Amino acid sequence: MEEEAAAELRRLRDSIDNMDAALVHLLAERFKITQQVGDLKARHGLPPADPEREAQQISRLRALAADARLDPEFAEKFLTFVVAEVVRHHEAALRDSAESSIHIGRRGVGQ
Amino acid sequence: MEEEAAAELRRLRDSIDNMDAALVHLLAERFKITQQVGDLKARHGLPPADPEREAQQISRLRALAADARLDPEFAEKFLTFVVAEVVRHHEAALRDSAESSIHIGRRGVGQ
Repeated sequence: MEEEAAAELRRLRDSIDNMDAALVHLLAERFKITQQVGDLKARHGLPPADPEREAQQISRLRALAADARLDPEFAEKFLTFVVAEVVRHHEAALRDSAESSIHIGRRGVGQ
Repeated sequence: MEEEAAAELRRLRDSIDNMDAALVHLLAERFKITQQVGDLKARHGLPPADPEREAQQISRLRALAADARLDPEFAEKFLTFVVAEVVRHHEAALRDSAESSIHIGRRGVGQ
């Protein structure tokens, strides 16, 4: 590959690396918020998944993607991918919450 | 669910929606850049996938994720998910480029 093309590839990859760092930090913040949602749901006995909310999110993100000239199919796959991870976290939070209740319950009956 | 908890859930979901809009727009820009990478690779006959580059990206993103308290496993799965989509685009660009060459070649021999 010519020197010029190699320099161009490096330049483009530097930009990709910057965007990936931004994406990872945004995802970290997003998970901090969904963890709060998970705690709230666990405290109120709400199910981890919410199909109606997910349908609204998918429809909204597909429209945003189309405006930004991103393949709406990819935007939907991306959200499904992230939500699957979030639901996994919520289920773990629910299990932890249930285990705490059992321990409290046992203490409550004198164990 | 009490009114207060419902209001808190709405507030958290509004923040998630804002972050998802930011994520979609960042991903749209990232694909614009990887499209340029794909065009460059296709012009220079480079393979769409680059395992060495991917290994560097994964290692870097895992470290960034750990610093940001995001599960490094998730960061790696996320990158693999995005790169798979990018490689799919690059392969399509290579096919388009090969088809153009064939057409030019045919014109070149008088067809």
